[in-house]
Amino acid sequence: MSEIRQNKATKQWVIYAPARRKRPQDFQVSQNERKNLPVLDQECPFCPGNEHMLSKILMEMPDAEQNCWQTRVILNKFPALTADGDTSRFTQAIYLAMPGYGQHEVIIESPEHNLDIAQMSMAQVGMLIETYHKRYVDLMKAHQNMMTLIFRNRGTRAGASQNHPHSQVIMTGMVPHAVRWREEEAQRYFDEWGRCVYCDILAFEMQDRQRVILENQSILAFIPFAAEVPFEVWIMPKRHQADFGQISNQEKSDLAQALHDVLAKLHTKLHDPDYNYVINTAAQYKACEPQLHWYLQIWPRLTNQSGFEIGSGMTINSSLPEEDADFLSS
Amino acid sequence: MSEIRQNKATKQWVIYAPARRKRPQDFQVSQNERKNLPVLDQECPFCPGNEHMLSKILMEMPDAEQNCWQTRVILNKFPALTADGDTSRFTQAIYLAMPGYGQHEVIIESPEHNLDIAQMSMAQVGMLIETYHKRYVDLMKAHQNMMTLIFRNRGTRAGASQNHPHSQVIMTGMVPHAVRWREEEAQRYFDEWGRCVYCDILAFEMQDRQRVILENQSILAFIPFAAEVPFEVWIMPKRHQADFGQISNQEKSDLAQALHDVLAKLHTKLHDPDYNYVINTAAQYKACEPQLHWYLQIWPRLTNQSGFEIGSGMTINSSLPEEDADFLSS
Repeated sequence: MSEIRQNKATKQWVIYAPARRKRPQDFQVSQNERKNLPVLDQECPFCPGNEHMLSKILMEMPDAEQNCWQTRVILNKFPALTADGDTSRFTQAIYLAMPGYGQHEVIIESPEHNLDIAQMSMAQVGMLIETYHKRYVDLMKAHQNMMTLIFRNRGTRAGASQNHPHSQVIMTGMVPHAVRWREEEAQRYFDEWGRCVYCDILAFEMQDRQRVILENQSILAFIPFAAEVPFEVWIMPKRHQADFGQISNQEKSDLAQALHDVLAKLHTKLHDPDYNYVINTAAQYKACEPQLHWYLQIWPRLTNQSGFEIGSGMTINSSLPEEDADFLSS
Repeated sequence: MSEIRQNKATKQWVIYAPARRKRPQDFQVSQNERKNLPVLDQECPFCPGNEHMLSKILMEMPDAEQNCWQTRVILNKFPALTADGDTSRFTQAIYLAMPGYGQHEVIIESPEHNLDIAQMSMAQVGMLIETYHKRYVDLMKAHQNMMTLIFRNRGTRAGASQNHPHSQVIMTGMVPHAVRWREEEAQRYFDEWGRCVYCDILAFEMQDRQRVILENQSILAFIPFAAEVPFEVWIMPKRHQADFGQISNQEKSDLAQALHDVLAKLHTKLHDPDYNYVINTAAQYKACEPQLHWYLQIWPRLTNQSGFEIGSGMTINSSLPEEDADFLSS
């Protein structure tokens, strides 16, 4: 028997249909594109030695021991948005439009071509989180009240075009409708209950433990009650903070550990699936809203969305969150 | 240079990034799963003779000449929703949930296993539209103020698990957030301008013609100004009508022709791509709202959505709608 659950934070409904899990194609295994990758690939623009294939290098985090860079931030060679123009809107006949103003960066996560986060040392993942934080703060300081979205695509099904481990950052000159919607729902909850909805979810999940994947001093990783896809995971700071920019050193290190360990579990238990993750945070610099709370959201790409999802904006999930959490934790 | 456009009806922004079109993997060709399919497949539950593999047959439209059925409606064997239970909500600790109440049907579009809409006769497509209409009206009459969504998945990338030509119908016991959002934006537009936003878009596109794919007496097919994916097409009745249930016989026949011809263009010009389509209509029986307007929306699955789309709810489209319309119409 199916069940329908509501995401407490956004009010979106999700259908749970365990009957559909029987179908073998529901969990497609990832492609073989990542088997036997070399440490260095001469064709890969992100590998050391191929700097002539890159557009502008914006920043590097050094590796003191190896006398080399450890993470490197570049402008995306095929950018979705660029620094030309500004945020002024204009009309095109009856329609509204604006320039493709913003910034689109790539964070190369390691000089090694075949290393993924699940195989990195904790120090390397820590350096990656440090790089995220630095780019986030720099971009938000320069462009207030815009959105800076940090995300990672792993595998073709997740939209990646390069195997070399990398993340991306896109800064936009407007707040997308879906982000504003999430913020407005959080505002309504705060106005009703006087509390942050994410803090309430955290407190409940920490006590209930049915959906918890792992926990450390400052971070909880769990499958949300209304996960939209099988094995969706939220990695959330326990301390209330609206803005990813506010993360402390202890939290960075705990986030690195949680991210590494969750991805290692997905890698092992689900056979290196394609996935996306994204850091959902306030669309404002130095946000200290009492109702918002940043979190890192992982979306394994095990199933394909169908016309139902396109038409309704609502997903059908064949996996119950409690069972997924059991499977990952065992 | 990129440009950002707003969907006039929903207010969603879409990024146009022609620079990204250069990458060959942006337009992935569909898999070869559909090459050399037989007319009849003994393993296929939707082929005639395999009725024992089906769950309940709900309805058949006869083919008088062949003394056989032409379209057949069945209950989905792996349903997302079922007729058990009702729409009453309940709490699970701090969360809201409800039974998986609704209906999930499959419309088998033809006895022939290897026939797609692009290859069907106009009479066959007409019979399919007739079947859509009949199921829509029957379900909405029995379950008022719910959503009945008709959709079609073509190919694995579009979430299909069967090659045999088929559509699906899902009736839900609630209105999803994204559907209500679309209706509310249309309401706001009507309150401001006193007109249906979709009628305004139609009038403009019919006159502008840059994005028109084809037109007949009662239907316009065009690429919307803020198409979310390459070659997204909207097929819309010219006459104002909130509810797909209101479609006239002339409109049914014109819709069949438009749908067939647009899908034939996609088939030929884009080499049989995977796609979804969905009929967006009012979430109410016999809706006669002056601000709503049903339309059939086609989403070719040429690219994969990435972490940016998951985090922002906003797509990056590498194709400009005017260029896509040119390409399809030429």
